[in-house]
Amino acid sequence: MTDIAPQPMFQRLALIGAGLIGSSLAHIARREKLAGHIAVTSRSPATLKRVAELGFADSVHAEIGDAVAGADLVILCVPVGACGAVAEAMAPHLAPGAIVTDVGSVKQAVIRDVQPHIPAGVHFVPGHPIAGTEHSGPDSGFAELFNGRGLILTPIPGGDEAAVARLRAFWEAAGSTVTEMDAAHHDKVLAITSHLPHLIAYTIVGTAVDLEESTKNEVIKFSASGFRDFTRIAASDPVMWRDIFLNNREAVLEMLQRFSEDLTHLQRAIRWGEGDKLEDLFTRTRAIRRGVIAAKQA
Amino acid sequence: MTDIAPQPMFQRLALIGAGLIGSSLAHIARREKLAGHIAVTSRSPATLKRVAELGFADSVHAEIGDAVAGADLVILCVPVGACGAVAEAMAPHLAPGAIVTDVGSVKQAVIRDVQPHIPAGVHFVPGHPIAGTEHSGPDSGFAELFNGRGLILTPIPGGDEAAVARLRAFWEAAGSTVTEMDAAHHDKVLAITSHLPHLIAYTIVGTAVDLEESTKNEVIKFSASGFRDFTRIAASDPVMWRDIFLNNREAVLEMLQRFSEDLTHLQRAIRWGEGDKLEDLFTRTRAIRRGVIAAKQA
Repeated sequence: MTDIAPQPMFQRLALIGAGLIGSSLAHIARREKLAGHIAVTSRSPATLKRVAELGFADSVHAEIGDAVAGADLVILCVPVGACGAVAEAMAPHLAPGAIVTDVGSVKQAVIRDVQPHIPAGVHFVPGHPIAGTEHSGPDSGFAELFNGRGLILTPIPGGDEAAVARLRAFWEAAGSTVTEMDAAHHDKVLAITSHLPHLIAYTIVGTAVDLEESTKNEVIKFSASGFRDFTRIAASDPVMWRDIFLNNREAVLEMLQRFSEDLTHLQRAIRWGEGDKLEDLFTRTRAIRRGVIAAKQA
Repeated sequence: MTDIAPQPMFQRLALIGAGLIGSSLAHIARREKLAGHIAVTSRSPATLKRVAELGFADSVHAEIGDAVAGADLVILCVPVGACGAVAEAMAPHLAPGAIVTDVGSVKQAVIRDVQPHIPAGVHFVPGHPIAGTEHSGPDSGFAELFNGRGLILTPIPGGDEAAVARLRAFWEAAGSTVTEMDAAHHDKVLAITSHLPHLIAYTIVGTAVDLEESTKNEVIKFSASGFRDFTRIAASDPVMWRDIFLNNREAVLEMLQRFSEDLTHLQRAIRWGEGDKLEDLFTRTRAIRRGVIAAKQA
């Protein structure tokens, strides 16, 4: 009797970028045997060196073409603003039948930038894991990052359904709960759940940075009173977030306009001492927290 | 040889209100033997009944005068808007030499409302523990709430220094790190570290509440992307927070004005695609997070 090892889900996984998401994908793919070979590339020599030291890749490549050659799954783990150039650079080297996906927090702009470069016979299926921490770089990854978290796929209309199904199976094996939705709807939902909260956190921490020095030290000392949570969010990767705001401009500006109107409403209630308006809102928002807890997201 | 038990720090501690802070104070006072007797009062019969069931008080009182009679330490654990009425009601029953303090997140307004009712020979020392959770009510208290957290005293100029020292010792025994500062300065620091973050969290969760129903469900489902932290903050006690905003109006409105200007600046950068402005701010805010971590507040 011959000992036959089970076939991995993909023969060769190419990870473009090895930050928090890329390195976490390498960890979970190795642990769950989702790929026979894990190839990693990064445009940063320091990152490549560190990836080699950490040992979570089977091969590291300075040239993107060498990483994607022969890969049946390619995952772009770079800031959304870089996806177009990456797609263009790797396109000539993609294997027929390969699945290409990404992990960006904006989907319409990534589709606009990537899809035109995808050769016939290669399947681009945009994706977005709803998972992250405030840490970045190849040292920050861990296999459990996606466990129990959402993963949104925004398949391109008319695209290959088998490729979507295979990618769904990959993410489910990584622990994610997969949802499919329209790219425009994704960008709107993420604008309110993620992009606006980050923009506001960055803003308020920036407002505190600009206070006079004596007050600033006390802001840090007494941050446990609410500010602390905002500093964690505002410590996220600057380039990644710059790209998100530049590439989801319309949806972010629309949500920001709604938010500003609501904030002005509260500002006026404070100025005029209208306690009932404040209490009414504060009571309604409690219900949303109960929803979050019931949905096991807290 | 007679077995002499050590003297507790105070003979009788009267807690006015038994929410998160009041019940946590009862737990720590009992554990650390900070008071020979713990008396609790609340204007809510349901709360009093629950306090009796939970057993963390030595006596419960429907009448505030009965709770404070003979107490050498009285702590107001009620929303800041209620402090004036509470002070007026208990004043005739306060024992000579008693120390009265509070736990409110606003200090100038509490001094304005409470101090006029304090009889000669009784010492009012305003205080504020920088500690809390999003939970409220007598069941939410726990002895460790103040451990390692800040406690700000804003002594009234010309007041009794021995009373300040005794109160400082009480809070230090409860695990707090005590800082003294001017009441106006306190209100300004808390406006940016606590009041504005809460106002913004309430606002953004409210903005999400008002979205169409289909989007709202997805906001909850995908809240792990940043929104979740805001829902926790926006689940805090509505009446307590209403009172804070109404009673720290000037400082909150000033910080809100600064915040709005900064947000408009970012909004304009997004609209005009000025990525360098975004990246610059996002990089500066990371430094504040490092400060919070270095100060062991995260």
